[in-house]
Order: sequence, then C-alpha cells, then structure tokens
Amino acid sequence: MSEILEAVELARLSTGDADFDARLDALLAWEGVSDAAVQQRVDEIIAAVRTRGDAALVEASNRFDRLSATSMADLTLGPARLEQAYANLPEAQRQALAQAAERIRAYHERQKSASWSFTEADGTVLGQQVSALDRAGIYVPGGKAAYPSSVLMNAIPAHVAGVREIVMVVPTPDGVLNELVLAAAHLAGVDHVFTVGGAQAVAALAYGTESVPRVDKIVGPGNIYVATAKRAVFGQVGIDMIAGPSEILVVSDGGTDPEWLAMDLFSQAEHDEDAQALLVSWDAAHLEAVEAAIERLLPTLEREAIVRESLARRGALIHCRDREEAVALINRIAPEHLELSMGDPEALLPEVRHAGAIFMGRYTAEALGDYCAGPNHVLPTSGTARFSSPLGVYDFQKRSSIIHCSPEGAAALGEVASTLARGEALTAHARSAEYRIPPKA
Amino acid sequence: MSEILEAVELARLSTGDADFDARLDALLAWEGVSDAAVQQRVDEIIAAVRTRGDAALVEASNRFDRLSATSMADLTLGPARLEQAYANLPEAQRQALAQAAERIRAYHERQKSASWSFTEADGTVLGQQVSALDRAGIYVPGGKAAYPSSVLMNAIPAHVAGVREIVMVVPTPDGVLNELVLAAAHLAGVDHVFTVGGAQAVAALAYGTESVPRVDKIVGPGNIYVATAKRAVFGQVGIDMIAGPSEILVVSDGGTDPEWLAMDLFSQAEHDEDAQALLVSWDAAHLEAVEAAIERLLPTLEREAIVRESLARRGALIHCRDREEAVALINRIAPEHLELSMGDPEALLPEVRHAGAIFMGRYTAEALGDYCAGPNHVLPTSGTARFSSPLGVYDFQKRSSIIHCSPEGAAALGEVASTLARGEALTAHARSAEYRIPPKA
Repeated sequence: MSEILEAVELARLSTGDADFDARLDALLAWEGVSDAAVQQRVDEIIAAVRTRGDAALVEASNRFDRLSATSMADLTLGPARLEQAYANLPEAQRQALAQAAERIRAYHERQKSASWSFTEADGTVLGQQVSALDRAGIYVPGGKAAYPSSVLMNAIPAHVAGVREIVMVVPTPDGVLNELVLAAAHLAGVDHVFTVGGAQAVAALAYGTESVPRVDKIVGPGNIYVATAKRAVFGQVGIDMIAGPSEILVVSDGGTDPEWLAMDLFSQAEHDEDAQALLVSWDAAHLEAVEAAIERLLPTLEREAIVRESLARRGALIHCRDREEAVALINRIAPEHLELSMGDPEALLPEVRHAGAIFMGRYTAEALGDYCAGPNHVLPTSGTARFSSPLGVYDFQKRSSIIHCSPEGAAALGEVASTLARGEALTAHARSAEYRIPPKA
Repeated sequence: MSEILEAVELARLSTGDADFDARLDALLAWEGVSDAAVQQRVDEIIAAVRTRGDAALVEASNRFDRLSATSMADLTLGPARLEQAYANLPEAQRQALAQAAERIRAYHERQKSASWSFTEADGTVLGQQVSALDRAGIYVPGGKAAYPSSVLMNAIPAHVAGVREIVMVVPTPDGVLNELVLAAAHLAGVDHVFTVGGAQAVAALAYGTESVPRVDKIVGPGNIYVATAKRAVFGQVGIDMIAGPSEILVVSDGGTDPEWLAMDLFSQAEHDEDAQALLVSWDAAHLEAVEAAIERLLPTLEREAIVRESLARRGALIHCRDREEAVALINRIAPEHLELSMGDPEALLPEVRHAGAIFMGRYTAEALGDYCAGPNHVLPTSGTARFSSPLGVYDFQKRSSIIHCSPEGAAALGEVASTLARGEALTAHARSAEYRIPPKA
C-alpha cells in the first residue's frame, strides 16, 4: 500500500551506524536565538512601557494587533466576562474543561510545600517558612495557538499555591477573542485579563503600569518577542523556562499497535514544523510496521502538511540494540515527553534520570497528559529536563530561612563564625558574632 | 563624644515624611546593567570557548589572570590537592570549617525532596519522580573576595542532593591560590577544581571543553562578566539568580544593645561600597542611640572606609510609627537578610511574606547565618525574595511527572482529552486518545 503514496521523509537511524552520534546531535540541535534586531525592538518596547505605561501599552497593542483601543479600559476583561464565557460554552466542552481543571487541581494540591522547623538541644530553632507569591502573570498566546489547556496548566498551580492575584495577558490579533480561553481563565482562578500581548505585555507585567499591576513572576509560552522580553526582565521578576519546540521520545518494546504509536508521533508533530517526534525500539520489524502505519495514516490527518514537514525536518525512527541502549538514549536526549510504550515500564523507570514527563505503558497516550490526566503539560524542552522540572505549585511558592538562636546557641556558633570571619578578613562580621558570646567567667 | 569625630553620613528617614516613599525608592533602586561593551566581550569569549575549547580557555586565563599556563593541566587541581589544603590548615580554622560544613550539611539534609505517587480508583498511577542533576558547576570568585564559606554554601546542597559530579572553577589572579577555599572544596564534596574564572569559565562549564565537563547548572557569585555570561548561557544550562549587592534590614523594638545593632549593620556594610544596611524602629530614642554607637564604633573598624562609603551611599535609619508599619516596610523591601531584633519575633513572623532569611531575636546576629548556623547564605537580593528562595537542595534536584493510565483510566480520560483537543483543532491528539477508548458494546 505504501508504494502508491508519496513516502514520508523520516530519518532512520541505528545506534550501530558509524555516524549515529553526529546524526542524532544534528537532529536534536536547537538554538532559539534572538537576533540583534529583535533584541533592539524588544528593548525599545520595554523602555516605552516603563516610561509611558498605559499609553505605550495601548499604542503597541493597536499597532501590533491591529486594534483601535483608546484606553486600557478597552483592553481589560473582568471576572464577570470570564464567567459569561464559561456559562456560554457548549455543554460537552464546559464539562470536559471542568473535569480537566478538577483533575489538574487535585494533582497539584499534592505539590504544596509546607513550612518546617526543628529545635536543637540548646534551644536554637532552624527551618524554612514557605509562602506564596503575591502576584503571578500568565502569558497566553493569541490567535490560532490560543489553547485553553495552557491557561489551566499555567494558572491552576499559581492558584493552588495561594497566589493572591493572578493576572492573565492574551493578545487579540484583529480583536478576535477566544471564548474557550476566557472560560478556562474563569475555571483556573484568574483575577484579571488584559487583552495585550508581545513584549509590551511582558514589560507591563514586569514593571506595572497605571492599569496593569506589577507581578512577581511571569509564566507561559510565547513567540520570539515574548521569549526575548522574558529573558530581558528576568531578575526584575521571576520567569519560567524559555521553551523550545515541543518534543516526544517514544520507546516501544514492539508490543504496542503500530497505528497507536504512529498517531502518538503525529500528535507531537502536528504542533508545528519544528516539533520533534522520535521513536526508539530494539525491534526492527516493529519499526518497519510503525513506518508503514505512518504512511497509511498520514493522508487521513487534518494537519497533514504540518506533520509531514515536522517529521521530515526533525523526526526519526531509531533502532537500538537493546533496552540498555534505549535507556542511554533517553538520558542523553532528556526528552520533554517520554512514552514508555511497553509491558513493564516500571522496570525501566528507576533508570530514567532525565525527562519532563513519563507516560507509562501502552494506554498512556501523551495527549492524555496534555489535557486532563492531572500533571502539568508545561515541561522542560530541548534537553533542559537535565536540570529543570515541570511547572508546578513550587514555582509559585518561595522560602525564607528561619534562624532563631538561643543565647547558648549564639555563644557556640559565635566562636565558629568568629574564626571563619577572621579567616575571610571580615572583622565586623566576627565582632558582631562575638558580642553574643558572654565573657568567660 | 560624637562631636569630636566626623559625623557619619547616614540617611535618616521617617515614614511620616512627605517624601518618604520617593526617598526609600531611591535608596532601594539597584539595576545591575551590563552595558553593550561588556555584553559584546562576553559574547566573544563564549564563542571562542565553544569553538576552540581548552585552547581558548587557557589563552583567556593567561590574559585576564596574568598567568603563563601552557595547557589545562596547569589549571587543574585534583582531589589530593584539595585534601592537602585541608590537612595543612591551622587547627582552629580546620575545626571551625569542619563544624560549619557539618551544620550546613545537617540542615540541608532536611530539604531533600522524595519521589511521590498515588493510585486512583481505576488503577491509574500519578506522581513525580525526583532525581538529582548529573553535574553541577560552582563558580567561586578569586582574589580578595574568595570566601571559603561560599564554597560550602554552594557545593554542599549539590552534594546533599546527590549530584554525581561537582566541578568548581575559581580564578587565580597572578597565580594566587586561596588554601581555605581549596580546603572548603574538599569538605564540601567538590570533585574537580579548575583554576579559571570570568566569562571563559562560565562558557566552559556551560558547553564543555576537552578538559572541563559540561555541567547542567551553574551557581555562585561573580563580577559583571560572570553575571553577563551566566545570563547568556541560561537555557543551555540552569543558573541560580544573578545576585545584586548584599543587604540587611534590621527591625528593632528598642531593647537590643545599640552597639550590637551597630555592629550588625557594619557587618553588612563591610562587604562592599554598594552593600545596604537599613535599621527600622518605632523607638526614636533608640535610633539615636544606635546612631551614636555607629559614630563611636566606626573608627575601630578594620574596614572603616568601605563601611563609611556604604552607609553614606545606601544606608539609612528609618523611624516608623509602629509594628504594623514595620511589617509593611519588610514586605515592601523584601530584604535579603531580615533581623527581627526584638523580644517576641515569633509574633511578627507570620506576617513576614518576603525575606531571604529571617534572623530572630537579639542573639541571632546575621553573621552566624553567613557561616555556620546551617541555612544557606546564598539568598535572593534586590527585592527578589518576592519570588525566589535561598539556594537549597531543591536547586540541584528536578522532577519528572509520572503518568501510568490503566485501560479503564485511559478510556475515561480519553473522552475528556478528545473533546478538548478537538476544541483546539488538534485532531491527531484527539485520535491518539480515542485509540485507547474501547469500542462501545
């Protein structure tokens, strides 16, 4: 059957190939660089919003999103408008969104950290006080890539953490509002929505304007202007990771229906042309079967062109020798999404050191995690799972160290601190500690 | 007595003053901006190290630190050299360093996160697998600001987290090694030391060279070149916050010895001319007493010139009306170090929302926390305690979401995911979920 179709251009790699390492590195390479021109425009936009506040924000929104707002009042949606969007949804969508929100909330409740402390023998108390951020800003892309699921995934952890005020920004190119996005904001506990986007929205959240309150952290995906602006305001506010294209690594033992796996790969590839879908197996015949399924199913896809382009650019079927090689590939790639499509995924789990989210067994399609399983779909991309975590409640909490020395504790610690401070030639440190040591009898 | 000395230039503010808000904002203002020239040099250095590896690293080190190394072997110290530095320390310093390391380790052990999961009624398992980073890079400044306590504070959390390999870089301007720093590295569990610094060291850690292994996260303080380089490699590797000058806010109820408080303020101010020492009290006579103590003690300080400059530039005595105003100031300033020098600091604690570390009671000098109390001395500066935390074990651990759907769970979640995916026009997502729903009987 595949002969009569245009064959998919999909790289086939084998760990036994002499050029395997180089080819894999080339496939994985991704660097989202802002060029100097983008950087300069973003710097100008940030400076304008810092200097002229609302006026600059309205001007930039009118210009970039082709609007004709006269003031921020035209670009502000209150809670009633969000609730209305939710109430007006078709029943099936309303229920699905509510079920997803409920599961996401329940999962994230388990991530909350609590304050802790302990008392030492001499009465000294040490610990950490955990508290929520005062205000969080959620950036939601506008237009075609406006996803209500992203609103849930970004705002619910903030809400669960106890953030006092959640501010959402979403551009409305040509004035088009996405009712599903507003409904999701209602469910997720968003307090205000401003229909602004781009670097100007990031600047407004980071520095505040007359209308937009200054937030403490900005999360959410965006285009290159948004990413560049987030990097620029990092330090003034907290930010989440700057996301690269989405990726999946499926590891199959050969026992999963090839059509299921083909569709799992498509579900990643359909995001955009830079998305990456990789399949690893030690079963060569199975890889061929999946490839045939891919060719068979491709023409049935609504987003066939995007999927073809994405598979051709960045997809691959990778044959490895055995499970051990598959584990080594997982940890080398550190994928955003890892599907362990096998009979006994638990056996492999302890060896997986780096992955954003791990979808275990034949039934756990990655798409379930995107929407409603409960865990967050904001995950570290481009190998950053080596050092970062899914978005979570912990991103909206922070800690203050607690130190309460008893007089005895201060005397004992004072001796140590004094010695070390004098070793660093910081004598005021030493003397401040020594004041708390009672004179020897 | 104070009349015969040159009076200290120290701002006196009162919350009742008409210009209080503006003056406080001006005092707090800090923006560590890298100018375009620094940015360009850093970009060039990073590009050179990425392209030419060790050769570029050796060249840059020879040039900036005035060395004459011929290869990286000249700039590498192994575990034996670190152990030797520790063994050769004077007894008092060795003991103090070991006691500090032991307390820091014991405190940080309590920060370790564990993996967790739960099973739903239909057999679906959800959770998070917590794992350590593979490799961490610790940047330690060289020359006069080389602090062994910083080595302990940066490396021990990584070691406690279970990081497999800890790489330290420390420049040695003019070839000068700091034996205390090497001894601290030995105690903290550092695996290798490279005597390189600046942007070149950050580039080597972020991208790896023939000799320097690529790490997953870089932590530790540095000058403007180091800070600019860390910002540039953020995303390629994780980084900690980019630190501003150190600061303390002391809140006193009037009952603490004014000389103790004066010395606490000095211990902050002696760091450098940009350090900030603020004292808040609702007791006007007490503020005057502390000011007199400052004038009395200033001439006795080894680092008098730095302290005078720092107090004049950024220090202040602030009179407020009452405790409530003091709390509002704390949360507005979000200080790196907060000293609650009062009889009942516990009463205030629940109202403190933003502070890096809280030193409670009259006996807890901030200097005790700098060296040996146990909590980390790497703390969020410049108001970033609004959204960030002390360095901790959690900075060297990361999480992978776990989702293992039972067939029943996949069927139920598939319905929800399918509805939402179709709402987002992502039909391959929908079909991937739908494959896992058994046909209705």
